[in-house]
Amino acid sequence: MNQWFPFLDWMKKYDLKEDFKGDMIAGLIVAIMLIPQGMAYAMLAGLPPVMGLYASTVPLILYALFGTSRQLSVGPVAMVSLLIFTGVSGLAEPGSDQYISLVFLLAFMVGVIQLLMGIFKLGAISKFISHAVISGFTSAAAIIIGMSQLKHLIGVEIEASNNVFLIIAEVFTRLNEIHLPTLLIGLGSIFILVLFKKKIKKIPGALVVVVTMIAIVGFLQLNEIGVGIVGNVPDGLPSLSIPSLNIPAINTLLPIAFTIVIIGFVESYAMAKVIATKERYTIHANKELNGLGIANIGTSFFSGFPVTGGFSRSAVNYDAGARTGLASIITGAIILLTLLFFTSWFYYLPQAVLAAIIIVAVYGLIDVKEVFHLWNIKRIDAISLLVTFSATLVIGIEAGIATGVVFSILNFVYRSSKPHMAELGYIEENQTYRNVNRYPMAKTKDDVLIVRIDAAIYFANISYIEERLSDFINNKQDLKAIILDFSGVNDMDAVAIDDLGKWIDQIREENVKISLAQVKGPVRDLLKKAGWTKKYGDVIQHPTIETALLKLGK
Amino acid sequence: MNQWFPFLDWMKKYDLKEDFKGDMIAGLIVAIMLIPQGMAYAMLAGLPPVMGLYASTVPLILYALFGTSRQLSVGPVAMVSLLIFTGVSGLAEPGSDQYISLVFLLAFMVGVIQLLMGIFKLGAISKFISHAVISGFTSAAAIIIGMSQLKHLIGVEIEASNNVFLIIAEVFTRLNEIHLPTLLIGLGSIFILVLFKKKIKKIPGALVVVVTMIAIVGFLQLNEIGVGIVGNVPDGLPSLSIPSLNIPAINTLLPIAFTIVIIGFVESYAMAKVIATKERYTIHANKELNGLGIANIGTSFFSGFPVTGGFSRSAVNYDAGARTGLASIITGAIILLTLLFFTSWFYYLPQAVLAAIIIVAVYGLIDVKEVFHLWNIKRIDAISLLVTFSATLVIGIEAGIATGVVFSILNFVYRSSKPHMAELGYIEENQTYRNVNRYPMAKTKDDVLIVRIDAAIYFANISYIEERLSDFINNKQDLKAIILDFSGVNDMDAVAIDDLGKWIDQIREENVKISLAQVKGPVRDLLKKAGWTKKYGDVIQHPTIETALLKLGK
Repeated sequence: MNQWFPFLDWMKKYDLKEDFKGDMIAGLIVAIMLIPQGMAYAMLAGLPPVMGLYASTVPLILYALFGTSRQLSVGPVAMVSLLIFTGVSGLAEPGSDQYISLVFLLAFMVGVIQLLMGIFKLGAISKFISHAVISGFTSAAAIIIGMSQLKHLIGVEIEASNNVFLIIAEVFTRLNEIHLPTLLIGLGSIFILVLFKKKIKKIPGALVVVVTMIAIVGFLQLNEIGVGIVGNVPDGLPSLSIPSLNIPAINTLLPIAFTIVIIGFVESYAMAKVIATKERYTIHANKELNGLGIANIGTSFFSGFPVTGGFSRSAVNYDAGARTGLASIITGAIILLTLLFFTSWFYYLPQAVLAAIIIVAVYGLIDVKEVFHLWNIKRIDAISLLVTFSATLVIGIEAGIATGVVFSILNFVYRSSKPHMAELGYIEENQTYRNVNRYPMAKTKDDVLIVRIDAAIYFANISYIEERLSDFINNKQDLKAIILDFSGVNDMDAVAIDDLGKWIDQIREENVKISLAQVKGPVRDLLKKAGWTKKYGDVIQHPTIETALLKLGK
Repeated sequence: MNQWFPFLDWMKKYDLKEDFKGDMIAGLIVAIMLIPQGMAYAMLAGLPPVMGLYASTVPLILYALFGTSRQLSVGPVAMVSLLIFTGVSGLAEPGSDQYISLVFLLAFMVGVIQLLMGIFKLGAISKFISHAVISGFTSAAAIIIGMSQLKHLIGVEIEASNNVFLIIAEVFTRLNEIHLPTLLIGLGSIFILVLFKKKIKKIPGALVVVVTMIAIVGFLQLNEIGVGIVGNVPDGLPSLSIPSLNIPAINTLLPIAFTIVIIGFVESYAMAKVIATKERYTIHANKELNGLGIANIGTSFFSGFPVTGGFSRSAVNYDAGARTGLASIITGAIILLTLLFFTSWFYYLPQAVLAAIIIVAVYGLIDVKEVFHLWNIKRIDAISLLVTFSATLVIGIEAGIATGVVFSILNFVYRSSKPHMAELGYIEENQTYRNVNRYPMAKTKDDVLIVRIDAAIYFANISYIEERLSDFINNKQDLKAIILDFSGVNDMDAVAIDDLGKWIDQIREENVKISLAQVKGPVRDLLKKAGWTKKYGDVIQHPTIETALLKLGK
């Protein structure tokens, strides 16, 4: 039972005294945060603001029942909204009925893919996305998102675009059209949000900004002089929506659906794991996928759009004392109540306020320090980050993350094709054999060469390893014996075993003895299967370099 | 000088007595072999037979001057001819002027790409193609090539196709149309070729078949009852051809050009290396690319088509006594003489004979034993082979090899994401620490856990490693100290260092001591840069597990 309904875990042990207070307060605070955020992210996704509220009801409750994290706040998030806009705006006019119907389909596809990945236990795929790649992608996406909101902040109609450079260019040519009242509201909102974020952490800045600006705009009727407002937000519960399954649309949406699945999952899972580690319960990647999948299928049937676990909102939920999924259920319920009774309150909410909320939220995602941090430890990781960042800005969201993943994996493969190797010498002090280049006092012999190979040997590095071995051999006069220290050879493939076997035969033809030392169990098994024990005898079985030397009589 | 003109190496030391006889005989034998082969492979590429002779003149001489192998027989080969047909037949009618002009362009592109790769020292790319992938691809391509010749062998016009299953289906529906005299000539040729290959190795079977069948067909005028013949072969030297550089054609041909470059180079380089190792001279991947590049640029200007080093022909050249590149120059000269004076001799040559030559040649490339060999050592390598084989047969030549390369590299990456790890215990007999699962007599302590990590640690395996470490920890009561044996950790990336650092901090918070033993130089450097020496002190510097234990007072 618990396997399929993870909420039974916490529900059975629920302690009304201990847990309920925290859940209630956290649920309320997150709801206050989520109402403007949801509307803002709906706007970012090219959808009517009310859909952000719809997406903040049913999915939250479904995730609370089927997800494994107890504090994760699922719902609309900026990155996924941007991906929705990127993927669907090429197919239909944002905000149109056709656009909305495609978004329902997209949410349904995201949900089904996540559910299938969860059922077939493919959650591990996400670990191939390096943190460096995620960091570079997130920073670039944050800039793209921020730029896309510029038009609401300055009150100028700019052609929607994901190309940051085009947006900047257009803003510069149209500086004279800036709508001053809108700009003042926007900058004022940013100032208040930053102030509360830094100084007055107890009170949610978004709530203050929303209330203040609705009051100002409503009182002064600023909408009549051109300040963009949210306008009529329809009231009532989200109506039932049926995603229309048509094959050409599914094919076109597939790449963006996969991107949302992966990006959404990586962000959400990382946050869920951080909290679970602190609270000492365990999160399962595949069950998380199930939970998110069911939430997204739910959102597609109740007029929402794709959701995932939000980073900052989950942190707020956790800090405010959320103990179980009940906190999210309470959030969902409050937003349902809002939909029933309070939507008219948001009529005068300026779009510039929503833009300011988005800009302040995504600004925190730009991480410059990480580049320097990685650069200091290992340059190539910083380069992975910068490649992903640049590719995302220049060639686009989906291609950017794909470039980063491919680059970082190929870099790993490339590095493995040129492994570190070292000639070893004896160090009397601690009776070990160490790299002669690092330990000049290490003693070597003229007729014995000891080489350590620091890599799993496979098709892509076997020829390099043979070349390097030849170099070591050519530096030795009088060579009578070679010992290969296999302590670093963690694995081999059949191609490498065949090639190395030929190389050994060639060496032995020249009357040079060869033995392997410190071969690991899994590699010994492979060599045995390849017939080496029969062919070469025990020389491949020496537990230490000493025993190999003793056997050679050296 | 020798850097750019490798032939100076052998020309300076040329010994007329020692070397010339071998070169002369080998040059002659290869010419006899190459004349029918060249015509056959031209036919396979969808080109007039005489172009196979053109491609066997200038490129051979150019490679002899600029390539580094002294025995490699460069010229038309079956695999490349098939790739030409695959790539160009979709753009123009095979044999048409437009088709031929596209082939000149393709040869020029192949040459330029090879030359650029040679100049920028990119020859190492080829090592990422596993031998298992090459073997699977070669077997599948051999079947496709063989099947494509079936129509010439049975004398039935079958729509040219790379889809083996379509060809077989069509042959079955048209069994009643088989042209019996053609079939008899074809089967007779195959019989003679196999007989000479197995039993009478001294005499080239192709020569016997060609002479016999020309005589029979010419004497009985079998062409008048429908036996397909080569017909008029124009005489004279290859005329100058200028590849017409038009951008859309270049774009379309680019993928096939790259495939030819890679496949052609891998096959050629492997053979060149085998011979060079036996003859004790060295081959340089990048100079080989230069040599092949110049040969292909040459072929594009002298009415030829893309060439590379042939596997079996090079073996014949070497076995017949070729000592230097002069052998290939002699072969080229003989074929030039043939073009000038003897082309009319080939009028009655039946196409079924050329088909038989191709079929017998490619049959030898199908390697079933390799599958079983790899399966016995490491199943996944056999699976790589079979995946490449099936993909090549089912989805096509270029996509097949691409699938194989990606599959084998991803498999390596996947394996590295789930590395082997072992708890170690002390073995008194030889004073070593070994895997307790393999050595049940290894002694462990209740309060100290020693774990060996057998992998370079990076973003894709750090979470798996942490999970496994937690499992090991949960199996120990009373845990006071952990020693991580880093002898197998060949490399780390910055992401893994950060994550492992957080994990260590968490362990230390629970009052468990942690030390690293046998950390390799390159990894020690990285940890130092990440500030570990300052933060954790010397505990990450223990040269052996013993010193780590001593320090812990255990």
